[in-house]
Amino acid sequence: MQRLLEVTFLESYRGTGARTASISPERVGVIKPVVYNGLMRALVKTAAQPGLIATDRPDPKPGPTDAIIRVTATSLCGTDAHIYNWDPWAHSRIHPPRIIGHEMCGEVVEVGSDVTLAKVGDYVAAESHITCGQCFQCRTGQAHVCKNYRILGVDRDGSFAEYVSLPEAVLWKTSPSLPPELACLQEPLGNAVDAALVEDLTGQTILITGCGPTGLFAAAVARTAGAAVIIASDVSAYRLNLAKQVGADHLINAKTETTDQIAAAIRDITGGEGVDASLEMSGNPTALHQAFSAVKNGGRVTLFGIPTGPINCDLANEIIFKGIRVYGITGRRLFKTWYRLTGLFQAGLNIKPVITHTFLLTDFARGFELINSGQCGKVVLIP
Amino acid sequence: MQRLLEVTFLESYRGTGARTASISPERVGVIKPVVYNGLMRALVKTAAQPGLIATDRPDPKPGPTDAIIRVTATSLCGTDAHIYNWDPWAHSRIHPPRIIGHEMCGEVVEVGSDVTLAKVGDYVAAESHITCGQCFQCRTGQAHVCKNYRILGVDRDGSFAEYVSLPEAVLWKTSPSLPPELACLQEPLGNAVDAALVEDLTGQTILITGCGPTGLFAAAVARTAGAAVIIASDVSAYRLNLAKQVGADHLINAKTETTDQIAAAIRDITGGEGVDASLEMSGNPTALHQAFSAVKNGGRVTLFGIPTGPINCDLANEIIFKGIRVYGITGRRLFKTWYRLTGLFQAGLNIKPVITHTFLLTDFARGFELINSGQCGKVVLIP
Amino acid sequence: MQRLLEVTFLESYRGTGARTASISPERVGVIKPVVYNGLMRALVKTAAQPGLIATDRPDPKPGPTDAIIRVTATSLCGTDAHIYNWDPWAHSRIHPPRIIGHEMCGEVVEVGSDVTLAKVGDYVAAESHITCGQCFQCRTGQAHVCKNYRILGVDRDGSFAEYVSLPEAVLWKTSPSLPPELACLQEPLGNAVDAALVEDLTGQTILITGCGPTGLFAAAVARTAGAAVIIASDVSAYRLNLAKQVGADHLINAKTETTDQIAAAIRDITGGEGVDASLEMSGNPTALHQAFSAVKNGGRVTLFGIPTGPINCDLANEIIFKGIRVYGITGRRLFKTWYRLTGLFQAGLNIKPVITHTFLLTDFARGFELINSGQCGKVVLIP
Amino acid sequence: MQRLLEVTFLESYRGTGARTASISPERVGVIKPVVYNGLMRALVKTAAQPGLIATDRPDPKPGPTDAIIRVTATSLCGTDAHIYNWDPWAHSRIHPPRIIGHEMCGEVVEVGSDVTLAKVGDYVAAESHITCGQCFQCRTGQAHVCKNYRILGVDRDGSFAEYVSLPEAVLWKTSPSLPPELACLQEPLGNAVDAALVEDLTGQTILITGCGPTGLFAAAVARTAGAAVIIASDVSAYRLNLAKQVGADHLINAKTETTDQIAAAIRDITGGEGVDASLEMSGNPTALHQAFSAVKNGGRVTLFGIPTGPINCDLANEIIFKGIRVYGITGRRLFKTWYRLTGLFQAGLNIKPVITHTFLLTDFARGFELINSGQCGKVVLIP
Repeated sequence: MQRLLEVTFLESYRGTGARTASISPERVGVIKPVVYNGLMRALVKTAAQPGLIATDRPDPKPGPTDAIIRVTATSLCGTDAHIYNWDPWAHSRIHPPRIIGHEMCGEVVEVGSDVTLAKVGDYVAAESHITCGQCFQCRTGQAHVCKNYRILGVDRDGSFAEYVSLPEAVLWKTSPSLPPELACLQEPLGNAVDAALVEDLTGQTILITGCGPTGLFAAAVARTAGAAVIIASDVSAYRLNLAKQVGADHLINAKTETTDQIAAAIRDITGGEGVDASLEMSGNPTALHQAFSAVKNGGRVTLFGIPTGPINCDLANEIIFKGIRVYGITGRRLFKTWYRLTGLFQAGLNIKPVITHTFLLTDFARGFELINSGQCGKVVLIP
Repeated sequence: MQRLLEVTFLESYRGTGARTASISPERVGVIKPVVYNGLMRALVKTAAQPGLIATDRPDPKPGPTDAIIRVTATSLCGTDAHIYNWDPWAHSRIHPPRIIGHEMCGEVVEVGSDVTLAKVGDYVAAESHITCGQCFQCRTGQAHVCKNYRILGVDRDGSFAEYVSLPEAVLWKTSPSLPPELACLQEPLGNAVDAALVEDLTGQTILITGCGPTGLFAAAVARTAGAAVIIASDVSAYRLNLAKQVGADHLINAKTETTDQIAAAIRDITGGEGVDASLEMSGNPTALHQAFSAVKNGGRVTLFGIPTGPINCDLANEIIFKGIRVYGITGRRLFKTWYRLTGLFQAGLNIKPVITHTFLLTDFARGFELINSGQCGKVVLIP
Repeated sequence: MQRLLEVTFLESYRGTGARTASISPERVGVIKPVVYNGLMRALVKTAAQPGLIATDRPDPKPGPTDAIIRVTATSLCGTDAHIYNWDPWAHSRIHPPRIIGHEMCGEVVEVGSDVTLAKVGDYVAAESHITCGQCFQCRTGQAHVCKNYRILGVDRDGSFAEYVSLPEAVLWKTSPSLPPELACLQEPLGNAVDAALVEDLTGQTILITGCGPTGLFAAAVARTAGAAVIIASDVSAYRLNLAKQVGADHLINAKTETTDQIAAAIRDITGGEGVDASLEMSGNPTALHQAFSAVKNGGRVTLFGIPTGPINCDLANEIIFKGIRVYGITGRRLFKTWYRLTGLFQAGLNIKPVITHTFLLTDFARGFELINSGQCGKVVLIP
Repeated sequence: MQRLLEVTFLESYRGTGARTASISPERVGVIKPVVYNGLMRALVKTAAQPGLIATDRPDPKPGPTDAIIRVTATSLCGTDAHIYNWDPWAHSRIHPPRIIGHEMCGEVVEVGSDVTLAKVGDYVAAESHITCGQCFQCRTGQAHVCKNYRILGVDRDGSFAEYVSLPEAVLWKTSPSLPPELACLQEPLGNAVDAALVEDLTGQTILITGCGPTGLFAAAVARTAGAAVIIASDVSAYRLNLAKQVGADHLINAKTETTDQIAAAIRDITGGEGVDASLEMSGNPTALHQAFSAVKNGGRVTLFGIPTGPINCDLANEIIFKGIRVYGITGRRLFKTWYRLTGLFQAGLNIKPVITHTFLLTDFARGFELINSGQCGKVVLIP
């Protein structure tokens, strides 16, 4: 089995991010053909303990409504890091052995007998939530909060592998103009799209608390959506620098500035009004209170970052007397969000600064180290 | 000065609550004329301590854009009880001497020189928030969260009096078919209208936690709006009985049932789905968690009840993973809510069971005792 | 094959329409068992000409994802009348032979091999649009405007028969408390639900132009939803009488009153404001202009009635200068509308006055005569 | 009275339109002081016939709640051309003598006795609709469709003059960074903002039929709002070229291409889907039908262009079966739209290509000739 990768391929796009600049399409399909021998390389949680093992596993076989995808890029999510680190959540949720990974794109190489639309050769990404289609939520256009969903790389084998089996229904046919390093990011980008655009941001002033990858994506989305002013806060100078690159207008280092200083800065920037919308992308209690404090009367707050435990909230002053709306955001709207993010790319969305590192699949450990250190944006793996 | 009240008047309506039944209009105007002598009876917070004094005060004089209203009914709000009891909030907010009271109706008896629409003889209620008209919120249709509002009976002399001066702009001309005991309740009813109808309730299952007067109003509104199922919870059997009278389908006594029992009951009633909407009208932490727990994925929660302090919230499981919307509700939308509640009365809204007691103004102490005991719905005073 | 029908069954419910009154459930299941002999009675358009033939046809066999339903009630729609009368639309759309009919309910008697939820014995109604699940509209929660939908009784054999085959995906499990004569009406009721409730009607004044069955359903829905005032217009005194029975407050006979008189009446009823919402349910040009004329500045108009040809519209004065919203309504939202109408029944929705006639399936000709004469509400057939 | 104008001033900004580029602020205030002598130059419709007369008129005096503005820029609207040309609409609406003009900005030079916020020296633009504040629409946040509004330059003397008197309530304080040629355009820009953003455009494909100034503004707004693809059509190559400059992606010359060709082009651009939104900005019947034809099922259409008469509409196929929403747009939301357009400028909105001509006030005839010829975008006059 030949697994040589065209390494130069990683350098193959250098778009300017300008709206009309094309992201080079020649990238797709240049990978040398792999040799099938019934085994594939995969990253497997083999036992209930920290770490992952890179090992050979049998190539997946498609069920009747499945497609097999040759993975061309797959990216690391915080969820993967939880599983890698084997924290209490992972311990309670993951049943080894399991190939993990759920942010991905690739090429359809085989389809099941009942597959109707997907064709061998299609370039696709995938929605990671496999929904039941039968619950109240699924039947009313809210499949993103399906009561019975299963997650790729958590409840079934995932994308940190050369091949992955996926139900046809979750495939998202992707324009060849979007290179794999970007195409695999559509799934987490979708989180940011919903977090940012649950209400229209055009002409609005916003605060983004937390510049992890999804916060950075949200800043880029807000920039493309015509936000008037984007204020971004984080405790990491590294990440604030990325925020600037995706379009934040004002950067607040929450490590070096006090809550009072931050509140004063936001008042100053907004002419004393506060922001129209706060996007809480960190899960950090201090940031969360700043998000509520910063929003003007009648504004809105998106909650996306997951706190590690309960938070003491002054609901009277933070929500009720302000007359605000608060949105809990999880997943992506199937498939409204996918259509919308496609439109955002057409509108010039530039998320490339967020991709700070690209490694071969087998170099995964370097990626998790970076995530644990916070000195990265998105880390992409190439199988 | 003659202050005889037609006491029989308090008994003058006995509508059935049926949609087509007219609420007797003959009630308006039967009060014997008062004798002007430059003094009026009023309830005054004369010093920074508990209680109120019924005393004579000079009749108010209108400013150029004000009207003088002869108060025909005025009702007790929780805010008035805070001031009566002189709790820390009242201590920090009220500057004696102050005539309190802000829920009212009456007859225009004098108008200022620049008043354009109000006429002597008009039957009116009043929005209690006097808004600035100049801030961002006021200029964008959100005056209910005006940054500079002043409240009747808090920041200026209120309606627990025979006469009150009000800016013309806050007057709400009321149909004579609505008797004073109901007309004065339009202000707190407006809170309930916004809390309940911030999203459409028609055909929806709802939970109302807290059956104080505004919770009861919300139940009545939801009934009129065609809610499918209304579940009401409270710790008071007295108030649950009122909830039943205004249309609640299921009553939950939160004093005698455990949180697990309550959750099970709601699951059972809703076929395992949870409710479409929770209206949190109590401010009680246990009720608040029940409200979040009961709502289905993708549903909505209204926060109206004011907690006495911060509440420990599991935002991940209560809001984010559920993908719900949370609305902080305060005040009433000027004047959308007033138009809407007028339409609700036309649609058959029946809030009469909520009016449990009517006293003469000077019997106010009995009213506050009842509120402090929880053995009442709304208490109306007749000056 | 025994086809005796319990005729008394047609008289089995006499609910009061009151919210808490139960619609008698004993009705379901009392039908005597039929004898399978491989043939069923059906109404078939056998040739490209007016009329239908009642004849025996082979019992349907289920495909893998289909269920066979024994039809217990099926109702006549205007579409069926078009096909019966063989008008130009029918000529262009229907390819004989075809069993027609699409409003129905019944009992599942057989399921295909891949059916997952439906079970023999289930009491079900059906969405008549069989949608593709793959187009933009289907993937974004708008399957009611699927680009590739097929209609029961138009593009595949329908429900004017003893048995019908249906994809499991369109089945709607129905409460046994809803008798078949009502259960089969859920499909057309869904049209009315969307037409009426595309925006919240609670506390609103509305005009309904056209009191055919869907207009009548809309009036009933508006009544349950807490509309403040319902004005209904039609050219038929018969239908206006039905409108009154489902809750219209004001009836306008558009045959005997001039457009000016109608406009004056609406102004009078609404205090000069015009209505908050107009529901155009007739397709008649005069009614349509009245609907636009009646709505207040900033209001909304629903267009549901299908005009027979182009209509000359004064868009400047009817839509633009008024700053209104216009909604084109077709079909029902899958399956939001179905859930909602279930909730409406729980809220006390009373559509029974609309069912004016119930016939045996083979008496279908009497039903079409009634529809052509306009002297009916809904006509239900019992196979 | 000295009326020398710094002509070089007309050339004083050459911003790049880039988001971060500042629009030169030094422009404001450089005008040499005028000499008061009680008379001002103004353009007056002196008689009921075509044309305007440039003549001296008494300086306006402020009423108690008015401010006097020294006009620094004022632009020509189609309405002004109707009045200039004295068409039937103008004949029925305008009562000479009248100073016309309603798009303007300038400096406050005097305030009435009851003015509270405006101060001498403020740099302001103005909402042209003076609303009653007392009707249903005004009291419910819909003052843009006030039933009793009066228009500047139509119902009271307007801005084609050195000075104009305006109620304080319609003034919009403007950032000095916005030069007068742009500041005076905020009023018509507001039309475009509402027409475009009545629903969120981020990531959406849109068709704009009609590239007059408001259509061009709408294209610029859509570009800033992150529209995915903007297709613009017009019969004028001159205007299509302007559309390109403000960000249209695809230009359709409706003069040289047939309706079938246009439909095919739009299908091709949108991958067969049709557009998410059509903005009809022309009032032309052919364009209007193209706008409806182009929109996808479930999409939306904005109607802004004013047809000269009734239009024959196929409501069934254009609106109902498509399940679309249609919005009539008029005026601007007070003052939501003004805040939003301020935010849009902060987001980088570039409308400068639309300003094709700037003349001295007394050269107004050249401006109207250009408008009548269609060979212009916006024409700005400098008093």
